[in-house]
Parts: sequence; C-alpha cells; structure tokens
Amino acid sequence: MRLLHEQNIENIALGAAVLGTGGGGDPYIGMLMAKKAIRDYGPVELYTLDELDDDDLIVPTAMMGAPTVMVEKMPNGDDIINAFQAVGKFIGKPIRATMSIEAGGMNSVVPIYLAARLRLPMVDCDGMGRAFPELQMVTHTIYGIDATPMAMSDERGNTVLMETVSNQWTETFARSVTVDMGAMAMIALYAATVRELKESAIIGTMSKAEIIGETIRSARVNEVDPVKTVRESVGGFEVFKGKISDVERRTEAGFAKGDAFMEGIDEYAGQRLQLSFQNEHLMVRIDGEPRVTVPDLIAVLDIDTGEPITTESMRYGYRVAVIGIPCDPKWRTPKGLALVGPGYFGYDDVEYVPVETRYR
Amino acid sequence: MRLLHEQNIENIALGAAVLGTGGGGDPYIGMLMAKKAIRDYGPVELYTLDELDDDDLIVPTAMMGAPTVMVEKMPNGDDIINAFQAVGKFIGKPIRATMSIEAGGMNSVVPIYLAARLRLPMVDCDGMGRAFPELQMVTHTIYGIDATPMAMSDERGNTVLMETVSNQWTETFARSVTVDMGAMAMIALYAATVRELKESAIIGTMSKAEIIGETIRSARVNEVDPVKTVRESVGGFEVFKGKISDVERRTEAGFAKGDAFMEGIDEYAGQRLQLSFQNEHLMVRIDGEPRVTVPDLIAVLDIDTGEPITTESMRYGYRVAVIGIPCDPKWRTPKGLALVGPGYFGYDDVEYVPVETRYR
Repeated sequence: MRLLHEQNIENIALGAAVLGTGGGGDPYIGMLMAKKAIRDYGPVELYTLDELDDDDLIVPTAMMGAPTVMVEKMPNGDDIINAFQAVGKFIGKPIRATMSIEAGGMNSVVPIYLAARLRLPMVDCDGMGRAFPELQMVTHTIYGIDATPMAMSDERGNTVLMETVSNQWTETFARSVTVDMGAMAMIALYAATVRELKESAIIGTMSKAEIIGETIRSARVNEVDPVKTVRESVGGFEVFKGKISDVERRTEAGFAKGDAFMEGIDEYAGQRLQLSFQNEHLMVRIDGEPRVTVPDLIAVLDIDTGEPITTESMRYGYRVAVIGIPCDPKWRTPKGLALVGPGYFGYDDVEYVPVETRYR
Repeated sequence: MRLLHEQNIENIALGAAVLGTGGGGDPYIGMLMAKKAIRDYGPVELYTLDELDDDDLIVPTAMMGAPTVMVEKMPNGDDIINAFQAVGKFIGKPIRATMSIEAGGMNSVVPIYLAARLRLPMVDCDGMGRAFPELQMVTHTIYGIDATPMAMSDERGNTVLMETVSNQWTETFARSVTVDMGAMAMIALYAATVRELKESAIIGTMSKAEIIGETIRSARVNEVDPVKTVRESVGGFEVFKGKISDVERRTEAGFAKGDAFMEGIDEYAGQRLQLSFQNEHLMVRIDGEPRVTVPDLIAVLDIDTGEPITTESMRYGYRVAVIGIPCDPKWRTPKGLALVGPGYFGYDDVEYVPVETRYR
C-alpha cells in the first residue's frame, strides 16, 4: 500500500491522458476535484491486488458520456457518490475499495475523488489499460464478469440502476440514459472480487500512468525532446509528425465521432494522415493505408510540450506527433479482438496488425 | 372484497378499453394472459381501499410503450413479475397489493395477471380513470407521490430500476429505456400507502370498467343500439358519427402519434372531424373547431357493435361514433390541467372546456 497525495494526482492524470488515446475526458476538471478532495479528506490508499483478501469486493467508478460535454458541464461530486452507494446498497455487502475502469484523463481521477471523499482504498489496476468508448469494452467482459448491477447518477439527483443479461445490453440502456442525463453521467459498475480481478484486470495501471506523467514533466524541466521521452516511457513507436489540416466532428447517440486530417512535416512531408475517432482514437491511416488500429493505442501529442491532445481539443493548425503503443495482450486474444478490434467499429475490411509488427 | 374470475376479466378489459380513449393497448393479448393465470392460479381478490389498513403499501403494475408494437411482440409474463419484485426488493417492505395505474385495455389486465400469478390482492382504483400517454400523467403526481422507485423489465431478463427527482424525469429515462427494450416494457412504480391513495387515487375504476363492459355485452345480446348503450353507461355525449377517410401515423420517440379524419354521416353529413392522438385520443376538432379535448375522454366506437376502436386499429372506411366523456374532477384542477390539459400536448391556443358544457 502507498498513499496518493495531491502531487501524485497531476502525474497520474497526465500519464493516463496519454494512455487515454484521445478520450477518457479532459483530465483538468477531474484532477482539480480529486486534488481538492485529498486536501479536504486526506491522502488515498492505493493497494495492489496482492495486498487485499481474495474475497474482497471491488466496485469501479467512472464518468460516462461524450467528452465534449464535460468541458461545459461540471460534475458536482455527489453524483458519483450516489452511483457508488446505489450499487453498494443493491449488492448488500461491504465494498472494500474502488478502482479505475479505464486509463483516461478523467476516469483515472474520478475513483481517486470518490476514494478520498469516502475514505475508501483504491486498487492499482483497471479494465482497459487505455480508454475505450463503450461500456462492455473492458477485460472484465472477456472473463465473463457482469457490468451489472450498474448505477448511473446525474448532478440533479437522479439515479438509474440496472441488471442486464449481457454487458452489451448494459451499454445500450446506459447510453440512452446518459443522453437523457445531458450527455454525461457518473457510473459505478463491474463489481468483482479480488480473486476475479487477479485474472481479469490490467495490473498496475495507476502506477504506470504516474510514471508516464512524471517522465513527461521531468522532460519539460530538463528541456529534452518531450515527444521522444513520452514515446520511450510508454514503449511506443513514432508514426507521424504533422499539422492538423481539418477536423470533422459529429455527436452521434452520445458519442463524439469524427475524423482529423494531418499534413506531414519533416521526414513525413508529403504524407497525409487520417485519424478516425469515437471518443477515443480508433485508427490511423497514412495515404489511405491503415497503420495503427484499435486495440493498440494511438496518442496524439503536442510536438513542443509532449502534452496529449484529446479528440475534443484537436484544432486546425496544431503541430502534433502521433505515437502508436502496443495494447495489453488480453486485447489481442480472439475474445478481445471481437470486443474492440477494427471490425467492431465498422472497419470490416481492416485486419488488426500489432503496431510493433509494422514499426519494429 | 370480491373475487375476479375468468368471466369478470372480459368485461373489465372491454369496459377499460372504452375508458382507454383509444390507447392503453389492445386488451386481447393481456386478457388472454390474465384469464389463463386465473385458470392456473385461482381467482384474484379485489379489495376496496376501505377494506385495507391505512399503512398497507400498494405498488401498481403496467405495460409501457407504443401500443402498435404490442400486437407483434407478446410479453412473456416473467417480465412484469421481475419489475414488481425489483421494486419490492428495493423498498424492502412487504407489498400488500397491486393496482392498475391506468384504465386501458392492456393496463387494466396486466395487474390482474400479476395478482393471479403471485396470489396477491388487487385494489379497486387507478391513477387516471382513463389512459394517458406519459408516466407522470397520474393523479398521484397531483398529490406529490413519487413515481420512483420504478422498475422496468423486458422479456430477455433485463431490469432497469430508477430513483428520480421528479416524475417528469422518470418519464424521460423510462421512455428511452422502453425504446431500447423494443418499444415495450413492463413496469412497476408509484408505490403508495392506502392512506395516500384514499386522497389521490381514482376510486372504483375496475368496477366501473366491468359495469361498462357488461352493459355493452348485454346490449349486443338484446339487440339494442350499442353506441347509445355505451354512451349512457359512461355518462357521455355523442359528438359525431362518420366514416374514417384518412389516418396519418408516425412513431416518434416511442409514441404512436397521428391524426384520423372522418366524414360525417346521418345528422353529421357534410361535417369533417379531425381526431389527434398520441397513444390516446387527445382532441376532436369538427370543421376546424375544438369540440372535445384532454383531459376529457374521447371514445371511438364501432357504430354496429359498440366495440371501442384503439388508435392503432383505426382504418380507412370504418364507420364509427365518437363519444365525449367527462373526466374525473381531479383532472380539472389547475394542477391537473397543467399535467394533461391541451397546452401540455402543444395545443397552446386551445382552452379546456368541459365536454358537458358544450353538449349538455
């Protein structure tokens, strides 16, 4: 067990935003809330799974919705407490700790906020090792863990609780309710025992995010190339450097979907990159050819600061580097690829090729 | 207390279909299910509120959705049990009985089915005295009773439970989930004590529906004018006789909306009637002038049999009589009219005038 203090939070949020592959929400608001909660209630205990009892029950907490909305609509904090307690009341057993369901800017810090406010421990793992746009896209699903009972709460005080026959049905209902709640909801779901998580979860994600964040920050101080530093710290590959020439967006059924286009610079001059996204970056095509696809991670970084750029903050004229990062091996299994491979997102003609195969 | 046997059910469903004012679903499927449940499990006890303890808890049960779907998609019976038990589990107190939330063909018999299967009593009242298209449109809302905790279940085994800050929010979330469940869901909601219902409910609706049904049936046997018989049994007024010349329909956000047009016959020859509906009949205009509006009841009857015609079964060429029926006085209060007056349905320029004022 180690303690998460205010100064840990910025590094976690920054690192998780890299792993968040353009999604998982802008970390800024959530980070402020988590830091304030730690200031008010004290540091958060971060446990490894091995330090807990196998029968301990863990309930992850997160935000659901289109990241574009979060910038305008701030969660009030009670909403996530309501969602978490609704699941606890429904299960009727004590909950030992919370955890992050995805490594994304916002969703790395939501559970920290909750843990601080309820003085509840947190576990150093998550269900994606990155961010994904839909609820069923977690390693829990690969291992047969139910998303439900799931609770969703909004800032008005509404709570919706569900028990479904599949995690895909959970996504269907939760997506509609998220739209009704104003395109954003706070959620608690995927209750699982430590025993189940030892098999199914992606281990050490919080610490990994923190190390990435620390690395970026020290690179800035020491004035070394921040993009190179990020790339090395995540074990990724440089795919492109360019200038954003166009961003096409649409909000569709609660998702921020679209494509960004970039014109290459330096050694990439003359090449054109198309980046498709649905909350998160899904696929990089260069001159029409797929180069990196889900479930591998695509990070878009500010070329000067190494700061990860979320899908909603991409703008014409930004100079960026695009990094491909190998995903967790659990996603490369047949079950994993059925859940989150290119085919699921409608790219039926695109075969998944591990990023390191193309860029080694 | 009296017992509801199989032979009571047909009369209740027929009478409730008249009060259902074109909506509340085709009673046929629900009637068959309720009759079979009584055959299998025995008759249902129907209590008056006075026969129960003031602290007894009553949870109404119903079907939610566009009636057009119900004809194709049959509820499996376990769904309504699941919804009812989910609310019971959530409240954590024994539930004394169920009741009908609306007088409509389907929703008069859904609680009978549940009562028979669970061998639970039923109370002789409802929350509308007619049918209405949205969840918050019950006299419970006028008296400040919460719709939630509300549960919704589908035939696959999915259950969604909610606690909301207003009955309007319940409607919003429940409508989306109903669409996701296939435009139809079984629901349990508006838990209230007998003490609360004595003030807020519309009393004796089941018995009233049964008497109307009996009257229609005996009129057929005795070959008296069935339309006149129905009109007299409900205390209504003849508004029109005509032939349906056109029906315009659209399914919109889970509602069956549209307009039917009729050309007058007999003493109404030369007049043209427009009937607007949203699951239920909302307004009759004759030659452009509003003649009967919500919350008063509009019944469209087959001119030869007196059989009520639902919005979804109206067809070109049908010869029908249109009857206007005064609604319960609770709906004529300022709170009642705000919930279900013409203005709520978008007819801002139409003032509510009690039907008996125009037709006495």
